[in-house]
Parts: sequence; structure tokens; C-alpha cells
Amino acid sequence: MTLIDGKATSEQIKQEIAVEVAARISQGEKRPHLAAILVGHDGGSETYVANKVKACEVCGFKSTLIRYEDDVTEDVLLQKIDELNNDKDVDGFIVQLPLPRHINEQHIIEAIDYRKDVDGFHPVNVGRMSIGLPCFVSATPAGILELLRRYDIPTSGKKCVILGRSNIVGKPMATLMMQKHTPGDATVTVCHSHSTNLVEECRQADILIAAMGQPNFVKADMVKEGAVVIDVGTTRVPDATRKSGFKLTGDVKFDEVAPKCSFITPVPGGVGPMTICSLMMNTLKAAKHLF
Amino acid sequence: MTLIDGKATSEQIKQEIAVEVAARISQGEKRPHLAAILVGHDGGSETYVANKVKACEVCGFKSTLIRYEDDVTEDVLLQKIDELNNDKDVDGFIVQLPLPRHINEQHIIEAIDYRKDVDGFHPVNVGRMSIGLPCFVSATPAGILELLRRYDIPTSGKKCVILGRSNIVGKPMATLMMQKHTPGDATVTVCHSHSTNLVEECRQADILIAAMGQPNFVKADMVKEGAVVIDVGTTRVPDATRKSGFKLTGDVKFDEVAPKCSFITPVPGGVGPMTICSLMMNTLKAAKHLF
Repeated sequence: MTLIDGKATSEQIKQEIAVEVAARISQGEKRPHLAAILVGHDGGSETYVANKVKACEVCGFKSTLIRYEDDVTEDVLLQKIDELNNDKDVDGFIVQLPLPRHINEQHIIEAIDYRKDVDGFHPVNVGRMSIGLPCFVSATPAGILELLRRYDIPTSGKKCVILGRSNIVGKPMATLMMQKHTPGDATVTVCHSHSTNLVEECRQADILIAAMGQPNFVKADMVKEGAVVIDVGTTRVPDATRKSGFKLTGDVKFDEVAPKCSFITPVPGGVGPMTICSLMMNTLKAAKHLF
Repeated sequence: MTLIDGKATSEQIKQEIAVEVAARISQGEKRPHLAAILVGHDGGSETYVANKVKACEVCGFKSTLIRYEDDVTEDVLLQKIDELNNDKDVDGFIVQLPLPRHINEQHIIEAIDYRKDVDGFHPVNVGRMSIGLPCFVSATPAGILELLRRYDIPTSGKKCVILGRSNIVGKPMATLMMQKHTPGDATVTVCHSHSTNLVEECRQADILIAAMGQPNFVKADMVKEGAVVIDVGTTRVPDATRKSGFKLTGDVKFDEVAPKCSFITPVPGGVGPMTICSLMMNTLKAAKHLF
């Protein structure tokens, strides 16, 4: 069994990006620039954005953090987005979600120029990904593809079962895994809360991607001997023995499933660290103006 | 076994649309207006467009046919598209594909205002469909959904196997069948030319949607007793005994598969007639300016 080390892979990719950025700058190109809009003071969002800013430093990117209080209006946000769309120095930008309830997230997402939408949430990017055109793929699916690629995991013709049909993981992951590219080209099955044959489908999977958000849902008897298991779950399960008061728990019962696997991602340290790394890859891509 | 009669269903829907259009006009609304751009004189395209114009008459729509010769430039087409985008009388329009080689189809598709893109090929519509936002769904997937709906075929929790991963059938069909709506909410598997376990997947299908374009590919031993079979294939197989010189042939070996099915679509007369009908439904939707 090989443990897929998302943390080490992510660090390595950031180093590779830093080398490429240094080379670009020595050739007279401008420094890639990621901007982030953060509304309010939600603890999780603060941490995520701080980590993104830190990753920018490691990669040699310029970063700009734009903060608003919780009572910011949609109009003010839309105006700022328009400004960032037209700011030639900004290659890509994100609006950290979730937003306060009085703001329509979809309006915000659709206002972003898709060529700067490094989160890959704009319908144009979702559509272009489905059609197979150049686009920004959202962080988690892009991170999983990168892990499959770097660990040389064969996917063509394999049965890939995806648990969960969310817009940010399940659906894009399915599209990507069935496309005619590497990694991809797999027979793809998407299961969800209403699937009656979920266990049987899991047992047939060569590659199992669990993204339901149900801690320890995947048990040993649901996994085929030699399967590749990718655990996207990151639920905070209360744990009084820890300082934080919780334990980050995946969708896979790791201890009993791992011995059956050819490859498996741990939680934490698997898919998680790859998401910020995907954002960095997208920002570099944006800076190259490839589409 | 129930034969799904796409021709009769399609006629009925067009009558329903005609009734709704008459009611709208009596309430002072304008007549829905579909425009079509046809380039060159390809026999198939001529027939399709003529049928679309005819369907508009049946539905009580206004239609406009805009013709260009094969040597039209991309710029001229883009200019016409811009004009149609801004023409308040035109609710929706299509550019009949395929286009001559010197024209970039993707440029043409992306130039269409997605709110008038009744073919549903614009990346914004593809993306919005995937996310679950209001959109235009392309003709074949929309037609299949409508057949499932009108024949009251249960789909929630069922295993739906789709053969083929094309941008116009396989991929959108997969997205639609897994969404949380009715019809939909199914466990969806997409198989294709590189699938190693295709036959086994087919045998497990409660609903089998064949869209590979391989005549008579699906045999009786690939279908479960009681399955629903939707045949999207329409290959012209040479047949000297016919005036046309060919026989329209589906992906399913109908004679041997039909007896095992609970529902099955014939070829011709199944999915085919529904496609123009989907275009009419989309045009009415466009006229209502719902998004």
C-alpha cells in the first residue's frame, strides 16, 4: 500500500512554481498576482485566506488581500470585481466563500471575468471543462488529478466510482475522469444519497473517490482488494482530547480500508493540501494568458 | 414491453406549445421568433433546417432563415450573430452545424448570447446545466428527459448506464440524470470506447442510454430483464432495397432487445423526433425571458 502524500506533493509543486516564476521574471515577465476578497471575520475563511497569501509568498507571487465587513453591499462587491476584472496587474482573483446571506453568491461568481476566475466556479469555466476546452478547473478536482498524475496511477479504462454529486467535487470530478486525457479516460460512476446500489458499486471500483462529507462512511467491506482510494472528506468531528476540540475526519475508515488499497490518501495530509496548490497552479496559468 | 413513441409525443408537445402560444398572443405577448443560420447546401443540414422551420409553423412561431454560401467568412457570420443578439424581435437562434472547415465552430458558438442559445451549446449553458441553474439544455438530452417524464419512468436511485461520452449527448445526459430533479436522481455510469467492463455495466442497468453511434451494438445478452432502453443511435446503414439507399439504424439490436425491456425507443421514431421538439420548447422558454 502506498500512502499518497498530498502535503509533500503540494510543497514540491509550490517549489516548482517558484522556480518557474523566477525564470519568468528573469526573462522580463511580470510577477503573477493573485487578489483575494474576504468578507467578514469567519474563522475558517480567515485561515484559508491567510494560507493562500502564504502560499503566494512561497510561489513568488504578488498577493493582495481586500477586506470588507459583514455588512458590505452586493453593489460594492460587484464594483470591486469590475475593478479587478479591468486591473491589468491582477492575473487572477478569488472571492472567499461563503458570503453573508444578503449577498447572492451566484451574482458575485458570474461577475468575475472567467479568464481571471482561478477558483473555476464561473459557469463558463464549468462549461468549458465539460466540453474539453482550456479552462480553470476548481481546486479539489484539479488537486486530485494532479495526485493521480504524480503517483502514476493508471486510470484509462478503469472503473472509477465517485461518492457525492456536489458542484465543487463530485460533478466536475466525474467529467474530468471520463474525458479523453490522462489522468482520465475511465468508466465513471457517480453515487449519492439516493443511490440504492452504492455498496455494490463501491466494491467494483478500481478507483474510489469519496466526497460525501460523511465521516468514516467507507468501510473495508466496501473496497476491492488493490483499489485506489481518494478521500475528499474533511469533517470536523468533536474530540475533547485535542487542543482544537475537533479531529479532521475523512469519509473513509482509514485504519481498516488502507491495508486493502494499492494507494490511499490520508486525512489530513492527502487531498486537502492540494487545494491551495491548485489555486497557485491556476494563478500561474492565468498569468500566462493561455486563453 | 411499452414502445416509447417519440413521434406521437413530439406531435403532442408541439400542439401543447401551439395552444400556449395562442394564449400568449391573445394576452398581448409577441409571437416567439426563432432564427436559423444555414451555411452552404449540405443535404442533411437542408433537411434539418427545413424541418425546424416547419415545426415553427406548427407551434405558431415566427421563423427566419438566413442563408450563406459555403465561402462566407467567419467575420460575416460573427457580424450577423451580433445583429441577432441585439435584435429584440428574435427570441432565440441557431447556427446549423457543421460549418465549412475555414470557420471555427467554437468561435461561432461562443459569440451567441447564451440567453438566445436555444441549441444549448454555449459553454455558459453547459456550465449552468452542470451547476443546476436555469439554462437551455441541448436538444437530444432534453428530448430524452421529456420522454422519461411523459412515460412516467422512475429514475430516482436507479442505475442509469450511458454509452458514449460526447459533448452533445453522453456528458450532458450524465449530468442531467444525476441531478436532484425528476427525471434524474439516478446512479449514473458513463461507458465509452475505452471501458473494459462495458458489458458488465450494461447488464446492471435499470436504464440504458445508448449513444455511441455503433449500429446494433447493444445485444440481448447485454440488457437486464425489465430494463428501460433509450436508443440515441441514428447511423445511415447502406440498404439497396430502399429508395433512399440507406436504413436509419440505432445502437440497439431492437428485435432481440425489445422483448426484455419494460420500455424501449425505436429507431426511427424514438429519440429522433424529440430533438426538434426540444428546440421548440427552448424557443418558447427563450420567449418567456426566464433567465
